[in-house]
Amino acid sequence: MVKVGGSLGIDYDAVCNDIADLWLEGKKLVLVHGGSAETNRIAELLGHPPKFVTSPSGYTSRFTDRETLEIFEMVYCGKQNKGIVERLQRRGVNAVGLSGLDGRIFEGKHKDSVRAVENGKVKVLRGDHTGTVEKVNGALLHLLLENGYLPVLTPPASSFEGVAINVDGDRAAAALATELKAEALLLLSNVPGLLKNFPDESSLIKHIPANDVESYLEFAQDRMKKKVLGAAEAVQGGCQRVIFGDARLEKPVSKALAGMGTVVS
Amino acid sequence: MVKVGGSLGIDYDAVCNDIADLWLEGKKLVLVHGGSAETNRIAELLGHPPKFVTSPSGYTSRFTDRETLEIFEMVYCGKQNKGIVERLQRRGVNAVGLSGLDGRIFEGKHKDSVRAVENGKVKVLRGDHTGTVEKVNGALLHLLLENGYLPVLTPPASSFEGVAINVDGDRAAAALATELKAEALLLLSNVPGLLKNFPDESSLIKHIPANDVESYLEFAQDRMKKKVLGAAEAVQGGCQRVIFGDARLEKPVSKALAGMGTVVS
Repeated sequence: MVKVGGSLGIDYDAVCNDIADLWLEGKKLVLVHGGSAETNRIAELLGHPPKFVTSPSGYTSRFTDRETLEIFEMVYCGKQNKGIVERLQRRGVNAVGLSGLDGRIFEGKHKDSVRAVENGKVKVLRGDHTGTVEKVNGALLHLLLENGYLPVLTPPASSFEGVAINVDGDRAAAALATELKAEALLLLSNVPGLLKNFPDESSLIKHIPANDVESYLEFAQDRMKKKVLGAAEAVQGGCQRVIFGDARLEKPVSKALAGMGTVVS
Repeated sequence: MVKVGGSLGIDYDAVCNDIADLWLEGKKLVLVHGGSAETNRIAELLGHPPKFVTSPSGYTSRFTDRETLEIFEMVYCGKQNKGIVERLQRRGVNAVGLSGLDGRIFEGKHKDSVRAVENGKVKVLRGDHTGTVEKVNGALLHLLLENGYLPVLTPPASSFEGVAINVDGDRAAAALATELKAEALLLLSNVPGLLKNFPDESSLIKHIPANDVESYLEFAQDRMKKKVLGAAEAVQGGCQRVIFGDARLEKPVSKALAGMGTVVS
């Protein structure tokens, strides 16, 4: 199970080259991807700039009104997903790109309102389309894998009522790793792993014991918090290894599999 | 096999309501959709306006440079495809949205250059990403249908080298109808059918004999030409009925199946 983020600096060609090599050697893989930076860029161009909110417990997320959701779908499910599928098809991998809506691969409860800290005060914002993945359609993924297709997955998810909801990709990948009993979950982004003193890359934490993941939340900044949370969920769900790896390098998947980055085990 | 266009006036809610009712009654359906009008709107907003070219034989098509292709993917594979999947999921249909790139559902030769008539002269334009569907991955569609998933398909297709190419949706649906041995192919758009005197809707041609479709090309304007060509290809491929129907009405699929529109048989 490989999750690659959508931040600036990520080398999708390197990720897809590496995945194609591993797939053609016979490794079974599922790829989940993001698209955050490009969504921000397109949203600005379309005159509907992104809005991020911070929860009272310190987690940052995109406020997803209906218009934002449609821009999100354009970038995540259109440009990014099909760009990755095309890269893999060019390299001889029969990839199939799907969102969490398709076949309800990712399902969860629709949260219409979000509590956000603004100027030190907690406000409630309504009209949000977000949620957390609670259920995964593993059967559809097994069907694709057994028939030789590499699934390339992306948010949004489906609510239990069939409404599109924005979900965190790292935690979606963690839910999927649990459902598919994945050997390893790789969370690749534009940093070398979890850093003790962010952004000092020499302060890389090389190992986190599986029974103590949550105590490392204190070192996580911004989006890294959800990766740590996802790692905790995946190891609790039975995944043996979660690795935070660097997607700016050549062969980022092989390197993470070999233990480069932060290994949770 | 239902193809619904992407022109203004099409009522996607009506299409999806009708498809959901038919599906839940046990009819096997595959949906192919377009997204032309919305692609034009988004392309304008993103500062890369659409460019249409007319071939020496009178067919109009979108000139698809790489940037246009990515905008096309955002709208067709992102906004439109996931919007339709969401509508169907809300109505209890387990839809799965895929482009022709995914699993190489639609495959054809990449045409890099196009001959276009400009100011009465024929010019050759390079850097195009277009083609015609020559091969369909029927196995993947059977796999989905047999497991209870309704496929929702959209261009682009994949070239034989794995490059994304823009293909005509009507002719892609025709190729698919042939491959899947569909009982009927419905081509729904924002007109009542083929009109003898366009745009006079009272001049509807109600029936076209299957062995004489191409002689009706003379009545077809613009995008309707490819529908007539697609109809000819589908009936030559063994499809018993092709119907040009109106997607601006309530129950547009049921009405077309009942023979409302132009019936090729």
